[in-house]
Amino acid sequence: MPEVNPEDVKWHKGIIANPNCSTIIMVVALKPIYDAAGIKRVVVSTYQAVSGAGKEGIEELTAQTKAVIEGGEYPPNKFAHQIAFNLIPHIDVFKDMDYTKEEWKMVLETQKIMNDDSIAVTATTVRVPVYRSHSESINIETKSKLSAAEAKKVLADAPGVIVQDDISQNIYPMPLFTSNTDEVFVGRIREDNTIENGLNLWVVGDQIRKGAATNAVQIAELLLKYNCLMEKK
Amino acid sequence: MPEVNPEDVKWHKGIIANPNCSTIIMVVALKPIYDAAGIKRVVVSTYQAVSGAGKEGIEELTAQTKAVIEGGEYPPNKFAHQIAFNLIPHIDVFKDMDYTKEEWKMVLETQKIMNDDSIAVTATTVRVPVYRSHSESINIETKSKLSAAEAKKVLADAPGVIVQDDISQNIYPMPLFTSNTDEVFVGRIREDNTIENGLNLWVVGDQIRKGAATNAVQIAELLLKYNCLMEKK
Repeated sequence: MPEVNPEDVKWHKGIIANPNCSTIIMVVALKPIYDAAGIKRVVVSTYQAVSGAGKEGIEELTAQTKAVIEGGEYPPNKFAHQIAFNLIPHIDVFKDMDYTKEEWKMVLETQKIMNDDSIAVTATTVRVPVYRSHSESINIETKSKLSAAEAKKVLADAPGVIVQDDISQNIYPMPLFTSNTDEVFVGRIREDNTIENGLNLWVVGDQIRKGAATNAVQIAELLLKYNCLMEKK
Repeated sequence: MPEVNPEDVKWHKGIIANPNCSTIIMVVALKPIYDAAGIKRVVVSTYQAVSGAGKEGIEELTAQTKAVIEGGEYPPNKFAHQIAFNLIPHIDVFKDMDYTKEEWKMVLETQKIMNDDSIAVTATTVRVPVYRSHSESINIETKSKLSAAEAKKVLADAPGVIVQDDISQNIYPMPLFTSNTDEVFVGRIREDNTIENGLNLWVVGDQIRKGAATNAVQIAELLLKYNCLMEKK
């Protein structure tokens, strides 16, 4: 069972918020990089499944896709626009600086979970016509140099992370094949040589499992482990 | 008719390559920013339609989606994996540093079209289950500060660019509504305050029109204008 910050339940006061599903998937992949080389800045673009919007999101994608294929129409209800064969660069409400709440969560919750306010994150979150598993294109500026080979090693050794990165065999994470699993899948691990300490990752995780259910169970397990479940309630 | 580098046909020797479809869409949006504030670095993640893979790509998405909806299967042929309700972080062949040829084109062709080798570009290119129009999440580090308001103004004034950015009305570019047009649509224009001179853009363009056909016509028109069509052939 992977945990990013298991020690925190010991000192944390008050309600432990289950973090946003996009954030937790990203943070599971960032943590081993952070521990190995520090992180200065992250530029993330997401490709988020409709299941992030619940059962109605899934039903709307199916019904709408069917209607479009048959030459008909199915007006959007759960989403602001048609999601079948489309992309919607808008998740949750708009807030400060024209970022969405979903985008701000990726900034603030990453800093909070990692206990480091100095990590700079900028995010663009996009809904895609995929049923389950969120995908993320993540560009990282580390504090010290981490080669692609070193990044692969620390990720492969990290709990809860599965490296799927064998391009000679066309192996990389895809949302269709990473649903209903607890792990976060990382591939397309590359150095970004436009900056001194740059890395690119492609990260996919089932946001229903990791993003909500599994993560809630893990937090509960940790609270029990540290005998503080009742205290925190 | 928008042109990024119309003067170049006058001095250019040899064959004028029609640039890659993802690159030309990005460059149309970058050019006004570049002219206003310079560009140091670009981090781009793409969301590319199946039509980039031609007629077979479109047919495969339709047939495969239908099969999946009906509970059946349709093995991938044009794409390396199932594209229906999936994402494939792999376009064209893998090359140096584990980047794809498509990703390298975005680096090298941007520098070439803009006549500036100092523009640093890193790219992650991803196929999405959308019929037409490529979308791109673009993070830009400019040389001098450009506010979001200033960026909106220079983009709105640029030929070939249409700014669709009214979040209060849920207006932003989406591939479903930008197909079969020549313009490049830009929205979600935001300052990225994780760096001194940062901007985020969401850019969508019909890669069949802008990426290939329209652009070829524009190059031909320029060559005729400068009386150099025969010379260059």
